[in-house]
Amino acid sequence: MADVFLPKGMRDLLPAQMLPRLQVIDTVRRVFARFGFDPLETPAMERIDTLMGKYGEEGDKLIFRVLKRGEGGEKGEVDQALRYDLTVPLARVVAMNPGLPMPFKRYQIQPVWRADRPQKGRFREFTQCDVDIVGTDSLFAEAECLCVAATALQELGFKHFTIRLNDRRLLAGMAAAIGAPDRMVSMVTALDKLDKVGREGVEKELSARGFSGEQAAALFAMLDGGEIPESAAVEQSLDQIIVAAEGLGVPAGKVVKDRTLARGLDYYTGAVFEIVVDEPKIGSISGGGRYDELIGMFSGKRIPAVGISLGLERIFVVMEELGMLGASQASTQVFVTRFGADSASLAAARAFRGAGLATAISFEEGKLGKQLKQADRLGALFAIVVGPDEARAGSVQLKDLKAGNQVTLSLEEAVVRVREELSARLGAAGAASKA
Amino acid sequence: MADVFLPKGMRDLLPAQMLPRLQVIDTVRRVFARFGFDPLETPAMERIDTLMGKYGEEGDKLIFRVLKRGEGGEKGEVDQALRYDLTVPLARVVAMNPGLPMPFKRYQIQPVWRADRPQKGRFREFTQCDVDIVGTDSLFAEAECLCVAATALQELGFKHFTIRLNDRRLLAGMAAAIGAPDRMVSMVTALDKLDKVGREGVEKELSARGFSGEQAAALFAMLDGGEIPESAAVEQSLDQIIVAAEGLGVPAGKVVKDRTLARGLDYYTGAVFEIVVDEPKIGSISGGGRYDELIGMFSGKRIPAVGISLGLERIFVVMEELGMLGASQASTQVFVTRFGADSASLAAARAFRGAGLATAISFEEGKLGKQLKQADRLGALFAIVVGPDEARAGSVQLKDLKAGNQVTLSLEEAVVRVREELSARLGAAGAASKA
Repeated sequence: MADVFLPKGMRDLLPAQMLPRLQVIDTVRRVFARFGFDPLETPAMERIDTLMGKYGEEGDKLIFRVLKRGEGGEKGEVDQALRYDLTVPLARVVAMNPGLPMPFKRYQIQPVWRADRPQKGRFREFTQCDVDIVGTDSLFAEAECLCVAATALQELGFKHFTIRLNDRRLLAGMAAAIGAPDRMVSMVTALDKLDKVGREGVEKELSARGFSGEQAAALFAMLDGGEIPESAAVEQSLDQIIVAAEGLGVPAGKVVKDRTLARGLDYYTGAVFEIVVDEPKIGSISGGGRYDELIGMFSGKRIPAVGISLGLERIFVVMEELGMLGASQASTQVFVTRFGADSASLAAARAFRGAGLATAISFEEGKLGKQLKQADRLGALFAIVVGPDEARAGSVQLKDLKAGNQVTLSLEEAVVRVREELSARLGAAGAASKA
Repeated sequence: MADVFLPKGMRDLLPAQMLPRLQVIDTVRRVFARFGFDPLETPAMERIDTLMGKYGEEGDKLIFRVLKRGEGGEKGEVDQALRYDLTVPLARVVAMNPGLPMPFKRYQIQPVWRADRPQKGRFREFTQCDVDIVGTDSLFAEAECLCVAATALQELGFKHFTIRLNDRRLLAGMAAAIGAPDRMVSMVTALDKLDKVGREGVEKELSARGFSGEQAAALFAMLDGGEIPESAAVEQSLDQIIVAAEGLGVPAGKVVKDRTLARGLDYYTGAVFEIVVDEPKIGSISGGGRYDELIGMFSGKRIPAVGISLGLERIFVVMEELGMLGASQASTQVFVTRFGADSASLAAARAFRGAGLATAISFEEGKLGKQLKQADRLGALFAIVVGPDEARAGSVQLKDLKAGNQVTLSLEEAVVRVREELSARLGAAGAASKA
């Protein structure tokens, strides 16, 4: 017997998890399209050279490598690797397709793979939902990113969230002001842990990285609102982003400037942002920023870009915890029994499916009670019973499995009745959820 | 500068390819749900032991192996591999979840990876769309598989296709009848190439595999309709499948018994089927069968199953070749220009998006002509022009980019007008496509 377990950090998504997941992805996709973003998909595997050196040293270690097939494979040669995010593949796509009309607004919803240490709620395969705008320096692009993410969250039912906004150039200004202009990345890496380890933790980390106590103190003074030399233009651009984002529909006050926001990735060059929910405390559920140099690493010429990513897995955790997913709708609405009149049962299944209703037909021909239990297990709302008597009379019994009653109708009448009942219930549920 | 090409056999799906693709997948998903199938997703990576030995010797060689991360990885140790199909992962899921209510009807739409030699139209990553019914011996399950696949094809617009039906037990009967009961797999492997190499080619292949001329002749006599010993019960079950499939809605005559149908995979045990389109000649676009022993390889107890897979990539090739995809709808419907009144432009974008229309806002503030060219490149149908004059008057100019005319309206009126225009055009297009 073969092994029946999964590799570390991998999981199956069973129907109960998939049904709300598909709804969430549909909503997100609809919002992305409404903002004028176009869909893109890239292959799971990229050349290993494409990925290496883009995610920092720690990131490089987490890339899954795939053995070469055929020649070289038996010697353990590696030439491909699994997608680590959706941004580097986008940069490669832009470089490979110089004819793409610019600005290019694309969305991409695909899994990525990272050999992180698995933890509760953290997997080695997870889905990213990214929107990016390539080919413009306009601050409206930042505003679009903030607004499309906020709108997607709102349509999913999120109300209490905050959009934190900062700029890498402010961080560079702070590094320069404390006399460490060449150690900005190191400073940011320490600062990036503020949410997790607090101010004292960051001070320790800075000290371990060779920053003096005076440097740390000067840094924190600026983080607390002290002036950063030559930062007026950058501050003004952040204000413009906020005005534009609110003009596009982000509720006033939701976007907040926050000098402590670092974002980990190496490739950001301008504005950086992330979205946090007030409750539960789970870290950011969305993040992004401007990266004007990354595409040039592939294309050889500077092509500015900005993007934001929705953390689908965390969004699910929050929605589950806050009870936002609602009862997963039953996938089977109608169950057709079999009882000595197969052709009538087949015709019934055909009619209900033809009317667009999710319909199962019994695989068993046994006792009616057993068949109705199966209908129940599937969460079906209605059962159709057709025996030889009904078949002869050209009728069916329609059983309402929730109310427990039944009526005898023609097949056509039964289809109409079920459709009416379902839309009445959906209407009632909609009204209840708004109350 | 990094390499800007893709690994062998990999490809990007740009928006022009993605838009029709998403429509096709939506249609297929809706049909699957209507037949009472529930969604499942499994991880891209499985334990290597889970996959090996399930796809025959040739298949095993085509599995992509992933290097172990951390300890052992640097020595080239391999412990995971990329999903090769969706059936073996399903079998593993069933074995790992003994509480799943049976019969379990699931659909799964995910990419799989095979290190095949890349050819025109054949890639090393491609999407499979599978439905399977686990836990019943009922022939209605075969009928459901045939009907759900046929219905999906019909809703995609396919009219001229044939469902070929055979049974592995007939092939076993033929192997026994020619005195080679233990060489059934070898015989089937040769026979499987009939479509590609013709009868003579198969005769050569049989000879190369050690079958005598008499054995080949006896085999072809049975393929041509000669009696297969002790095959009455199997023949009858195939007839029952056809009756049930037609009862469920497969058009009469579409399912055809065909003794030459072999299907390559090792794990089939009963009925096998495939769907071919009459034009173009591209091989099967769908295939499947009953595999009652596969799940037992994982669970240790016999759990019968039957399934069918839609070959999405080939379906696309056919739809493209037959002009069935229609003009890819423009993803941007409304383009909002910027002309010295940003807050009015932002408000306009917000209003059109709020009404559910796919709306882009200009990132440029330059000449109107340049902005309208961008609207054109995006395939937008309408442009909104708001300059300082319009902003003061509380109005917008609505330009119909196809008709070339324009009117001045309030923002609310413009939104209503665009919605009306678009639904009128959609109605007209629908009427035209039905004509």
